Amino acid sequence: MTDIAPLSDDIGFLLTRAGTSLTAAAKTALAPLDLRVRSYSALALACEHSGGLGQRQLAEELGLDPSQIVALVDDLEVRELITRRVDPTDRRNKRIDATDAGRELCVDAQRALASTQTNILSTLGDQGVRELRQALRMIVD
Amino acid sequence: MTDIAPLSDDIGFLLTRAGTSLTAAAKTALAPLDLRVRSYSALALACEHSGGLGQRQLAEELGLDPSQIVALVDDLEVRELITRRVDPTDRRNKRIDATDAGRELCVDAQRALASTQTNILSTLGDQGVRELRQALRMIVD
Repeated sequence: MTDIAPLSDDIGFLLTRAGTSLTAAAKTALAPLDLRVRSYSALALACEHSGGLGQRQLAEELGLDPSQIVALVDDLEVRELITRRVDPTDRRNKRIDATDAGRELCVDAQRALASTQTNILSTLGDQGVRELRQALRMIVD
Repeated sequence: MTDIAPLSDDIGFLLTRAGTSLTAAAKTALAPLDLRVRSYSALALACEHSGGLGQRQLAEELGLDPSQIVALVDDLEVRELITRRVDPTDRRNKRIDATDAGRELCVDAQRALASTQTNILSTLGDQGVRELRQALRMIVD
């Protein structure tokens, strides 16, 4: 009989388990700021692309369907963390900019996340974290 | 103003993106075998623990709530890929064993997954994949 490989060898399984674990920790860290993990990610991308981020580009960078981000962006806009305007180069697209309040909240969120992640990733060491980041980027790209 | 770190530096975000990408590929690879990713994972664990796997232990190893795996295990049982019996050491728990047909399907599934993953992970090289596996295990444990 052919050998069956242990599931704990499977990179896909391990990625999902590790991702779930970090997402759960992020959820807890962001809750006091009234941010969900996806809202934080959208806000962080809006802050990063300070010239204005296309709503479609946002969906793509988050790996989500454009229909999935409408409510997310609506919520950030109502809270005045971002503004939304018609893209002058493509009137069917919207551009998103972070407000000053949005940037401030993003900084707080990143501080909260960094301290949570440092705990979870401490066994890897700084060099291990850098190597992991690089490997994950190669998979994502 | 404090700098905002790019989202692509965030290990949690990268893990989720990379996990989603491998899960999507696994979904496609397993579809011809009529297996979903979670069903495959449950079957693989049943094959791995040949002495019989507790249903609660299965939920734990998959990182799922016990309520989430009932339908999963029911489906595998109906398809005669596993059998289920009362745990003699704890009558409130069920033990799961893979059948011969279950083991055969698992081998086919692992073959299909390996070829998909080899493609996605090829840029990392063998050593890179081993290091990534080790880092992910440290996070999961």
